[in-house]
Amino acid sequence: MAERNIQLNLAYDGSNYHGWQRQTNALTLQEVLETAIGRMLREPVTLIASGRTDAGVHALNQVCNFRTSTLLDPATIRKGLNALLPADIRILHAAEAPLSFNARYSARKKLYRYHIVNREVPDVFRRRTAWHIPRPLDTARMARCLALIEGTHDFSSFRAAGSSNRNPVRTILRADLQADAPGLVRIELEADGFLRHMVRNVVGTVVRAGVGKISLEDFASVLRARDRRCAGATAPAHGLFLVAVFY
Amino acid sequence: MAERNIQLNLAYDGSNYHGWQRQTNALTLQEVLETAIGRMLREPVTLIASGRTDAGVHALNQVCNFRTSTLLDPATIRKGLNALLPADIRILHAAEAPLSFNARYSARKKLYRYHIVNREVPDVFRRRTAWHIPRPLDTARMARCLALIEGTHDFSSFRAAGSSNRNPVRTILRADLQADAPGLVRIELEADGFLRHMVRNVVGTVVRAGVGKISLEDFASVLRARDRRCAGATAPAHGLFLVAVFY
Repeated sequence: MAERNIQLNLAYDGSNYHGWQRQTNALTLQEVLETAIGRMLREPVTLIASGRTDAGVHALNQVCNFRTSTLLDPATIRKGLNALLPADIRILHAAEAPLSFNARYSARKKLYRYHIVNREVPDVFRRRTAWHIPRPLDTARMARCLALIEGTHDFSSFRAAGSSNRNPVRTILRADLQADAPGLVRIELEADGFLRHMVRNVVGTVVRAGVGKISLEDFASVLRARDRRCAGATAPAHGLFLVAVFY
Repeated sequence: MAERNIQLNLAYDGSNYHGWQRQTNALTLQEVLETAIGRMLREPVTLIASGRTDAGVHALNQVCNFRTSTLLDPATIRKGLNALLPADIRILHAAEAPLSFNARYSARKKLYRYHIVNREVPDVFRRRTAWHIPRPLDTARMARCLALIEGTHDFSSFRAAGSSNRNPVRTILRADLQADAPGLVRIELEADGFLRHMVRNVVGTVVRAGVGKISLEDFASVLRARDRRCAGATAPAHGLFLVAVFY
């Protein structure tokens, strides 16, 4: 029986999961999805995601793929999985993919969005999906910081502490900010790839500029330093969304 | 000591509560709030809300008031209460009100909003705050139905079954629909007052027109019939938001 490669696009509220990647003692998205697929198709599968979202991070459109010998058509797979999965995970789309397609290695670029609620009182409807910052933010300065990271740079200052084995150079195609809705700041980063914790470390440092703790020049120095110890604290996971993966 | 009247504006995610009004065997917003205020001010209080939201209904800006002899200023009351309350209830604003102010009887009009996710796959981020309808909706026909209820009418067809003691005439100042965001339909009703379940019964009947089960003329007949048995099913509570109360 010819092997097939199925691509899944899915959305999830990451609040209840310890991130994407399987862990022995914690519930993860990979485990919940592999279990549901395995039960439906009656064969064990291994899911490959475009990237491993951290604990608490959400996805509007994550992409993954798996090999299978099932004869079911993609729409049936989508409907069957949505009947088995918990309500905080939904398969948006299932499709036949070429055998060469790999959700991780075929990805050309990704878009992440970060939500900040910037008003004194938290927004009850965004308490699980936005970082609440009561102090006023200078969003114009934050936007200027973001403009500095566009282009190709060594992002060592913004990678997770302790991770040093991979090439730290990435190309940011777009880094900008929207503050059009009252009390809500949206930061978007689109890049050919991201280092671990990179978006959250960029956001944490941009927020330091936004509250006046560092200047635009300080921010530029952090980027140039290529040293994680120079950047601000990692922004909380629950404000981050994987928005789209481009192939 | 002079008695004072404090007005509170608050937001809540109604998912975890059995509505506003105190009940013996279920957790309600009134009980949680009165307990927090009583603990903070060290005196029992009775909260008067602009209206009693049903179990599962949300509020972006509910208004209530209570009498107290406390000497604390309103900003301190707001901050203290937000420190005591669970994260799904937030006091947005506290203010000194005239002794004559009554959140219920002083209200001149109210605005409600209803959210429908109209696409095949549910939106995980709106699973607690929108009614998921997978079938395509004719939003133009729905908007025409809504236009028919604007003005002063007897809304007996849209009141809760079994409630017949109060005057069923209300004036709808605005009833319209927005379908600008993909997959999301927002219905807004602004009126001088609402009968019990009125918004949810209007939405349930408008949706029957939206899926083609009844025509615009049928909808007009339902309104004219002044009989609850003619209208559609009550729309689920979790799609409904009290947006604003006007005094």
